[in-house]
Amino acid sequence: MALPLFLSLVPPAEAWRRLEEHLDRGPHEVETVGLFEACGRVLAEDVTSPGDLPGFPRSTVDGFAVRARDTFGATDSLPALLAIAGEVRMGETARFALEPGKCARIATGAMLPQGADAVVMVETTEEMGSGLIAVAKPVAPGENVVGPAEDVAKGDVLLQRGRRLRPQDIGALAAAGVSRVRVAAGPKVAIMSTGDELVEVSDALLPGKVRDTNSYSLYAAVLAAGARPVAAGIVRDDYREVASAMREQLARADMLVVSGGSSIGTRDLARDAIDSLGPPGVLVHGVAVRPGKPTILAVAGGKPVFGLPGHPVSCLTIFRLFVEPAIARWMGTAPERREVEARLGANVASVAGREDYIGVKISVRDGVRWADPVFTKSALISGLVASDGVVRVPAEVEGIEKGAPVTVTLF
Amino acid sequence: MALPLFLSLVPPAEAWRRLEEHLDRGPHEVETVGLFEACGRVLAEDVTSPGDLPGFPRSTVDGFAVRARDTFGATDSLPALLAIAGEVRMGETARFALEPGKCARIATGAMLPQGADAVVMVETTEEMGSGLIAVAKPVAPGENVVGPAEDVAKGDVLLQRGRRLRPQDIGALAAAGVSRVRVAAGPKVAIMSTGDELVEVSDALLPGKVRDTNSYSLYAAVLAAGARPVAAGIVRDDYREVASAMREQLARADMLVVSGGSSIGTRDLARDAIDSLGPPGVLVHGVAVRPGKPTILAVAGGKPVFGLPGHPVSCLTIFRLFVEPAIARWMGTAPERREVEARLGANVASVAGREDYIGVKISVRDGVRWADPVFTKSALISGLVASDGVVRVPAEVEGIEKGAPVTVTLF
Repeated sequence: MALPLFLSLVPPAEAWRRLEEHLDRGPHEVETVGLFEACGRVLAEDVTSPGDLPGFPRSTVDGFAVRARDTFGATDSLPALLAIAGEVRMGETARFALEPGKCARIATGAMLPQGADAVVMVETTEEMGSGLIAVAKPVAPGENVVGPAEDVAKGDVLLQRGRRLRPQDIGALAAAGVSRVRVAAGPKVAIMSTGDELVEVSDALLPGKVRDTNSYSLYAAVLAAGARPVAAGIVRDDYREVASAMREQLARADMLVVSGGSSIGTRDLARDAIDSLGPPGVLVHGVAVRPGKPTILAVAGGKPVFGLPGHPVSCLTIFRLFVEPAIARWMGTAPERREVEARLGANVASVAGREDYIGVKISVRDGVRWADPVFTKSALISGLVASDGVVRVPAEVEGIEKGAPVTVTLF
Repeated sequence: MALPLFLSLVPPAEAWRRLEEHLDRGPHEVETVGLFEACGRVLAEDVTSPGDLPGFPRSTVDGFAVRARDTFGATDSLPALLAIAGEVRMGETARFALEPGKCARIATGAMLPQGADAVVMVETTEEMGSGLIAVAKPVAPGENVVGPAEDVAKGDVLLQRGRRLRPQDIGALAAAGVSRVRVAAGPKVAIMSTGDELVEVSDALLPGKVRDTNSYSLYAAVLAAGARPVAAGIVRDDYREVASAMREQLARADMLVVSGGSSIGTRDLARDAIDSLGPPGVLVHGVAVRPGKPTILAVAGGKPVFGLPGHPVSCLTIFRLFVEPAIARWMGTAPERREVEARLGANVASVAGREDYIGVKISVRDGVRWADPVFTKSALISGLVASDGVVRVPAEVEGIEKGAPVTVTLF
């Protein structure tokens, strides 16, 4: 029944669409944190301002609070003369009202006394002695003043649900008097590596063996995406072992990511094991993308299951294409993307009908930012560390010429 | 003696230079972590590969391991016929040697048997029955093979000191068998707010008062920079209180960041208190930058001390300009920068001789990325949350015209 899915490669956007329609948008799990723990977290609900900000008219400069009309027509040669009636310092309540013809010394951020409706900058005044100042330039009502609720009004949405909180957002929450926020918890993502060739990182490397790389890179990538990784270790290429380990891990997690199982003979094993986890099962097997063709996308019991290629570079490429967006969706947000424009440093060929992701190294030469393709002969390690990011070659083109402007997704 | 410093504004680059020459480059404190804890951390030393990778010749494709010379001259019409002598699967040691005229079935990543020096892709072969295959295209020695140490040789520097470890770097460490790494610890950064107008986030906001915003935004910014924030709270505008609180905090921390104290009357208080902490004292007071002019840079007992403006937007701008680079230097690395190119959405005026940082909001219209200046009338909160980043207007220009290409530093 699911056979037709495996006969042709699915374009990445269509593959994501097939997966996405089975995944409810989050946040699925919410927690409350204080502001010191909130940076980088995703808001689970809109935050509205509990009050007007400011709650009183404030000066935005150092100078003199005035009744604006007392300054109308003032010039250098015919300044307005005002009597200093008092002073309002930062943090003080202005306890007096300003009479016509009077002014009050005021600091940036301080409260305007009643009656005042503008502030004259100290630079445009001159102290004349005997408690008088000369104002050489008129001010309009409201000038150099932030009125009550002019910054944020009570009930205004300060920050929207789904936002990743930055240091300045944390500052805004503090300024508004919001000391705790509801944020999305990240999904628990179980990470499993399959393959008879795999050994643990600290094991001796016998001929023919390779160390389990993907458990570690995926663990870090899951953490960086704001989710909670669970390392499930290495499982041998045996259908029963793989299927039973998958079932066990998925029961305790919100998502399952399995890498490996894409070489001859093990390809069907991973797919069949994933398909055994429950309906709807495998949705996509084979994506028109390089690297990453043998990708499997599945859902079982409402939880996404990803079969990623064993090659470390392919594995992370597909993680960013499908797993990271799924994690963001689970939390009710969008993945963070870091992109820069550059010029391609060398010709890159591609096959029409397939999306290619080319690893590139960024460098600046003659004031121009270049993205130099990193061509590695399937080298596992040097290929991993050499790239600063990837350039996407769309399915409809057959390559990109040297010097062409490209967008690099950094990672 | 230090007087001349305060008479004129110092350009930001010169201000940094004056500070930097007093700060030893780190890492100043090092710890060892396992790979699961290493993502985002800064390497404290070069990591070299403990062995050759691969340790044996590996196939990069699914196909047949051959002696390349046995395929020389093969064509579609006159294929080379080779006898299948065995099979090497992933993770197996190839225990037989390949005789002339023979081949071995081999999986991607598997080990080449002795005698073989190339691999023929399965797509260019045809099985003829009786254990024979026909090879329609010659392969060169080394084709579709990664030789021993071709990826990374024993002793090669895999990752350099100062590198911030990404998921793919963690994968590379795992692949090389490095399970623990030495990383830089972040400096302890004490954060203090000064001002009689400040109240705690959860306090009622009486007229004239504002909530302490900078303690929270700076705490988050210090965390995001990889350092260890210590919240020292609010201190009143009193020289003795401020100086004694500063001394106490600096004794326990590696850096001190004090915000506020830049309004009339308190300006000199912060500077004098910082200058009392020890030699060399205040190095810069007043930087030719907007926002952030009243910035103070100082060093006491080898530890940097920063006096940041009280306005939340100015405070974070100056944090990114001076504190973040100082934290990175302490750890032996460089600050992470996220930049995008865009076109400026409106004219921006500036004063020659002063570097301006204009808050901008990014949006894409008609396929073009625009950076629209966020003009906020010194509004504390809406100004904080509205920007996606800043555009720098260099000191030597008097503004940037709408439509001009600009670089946006995201935050």
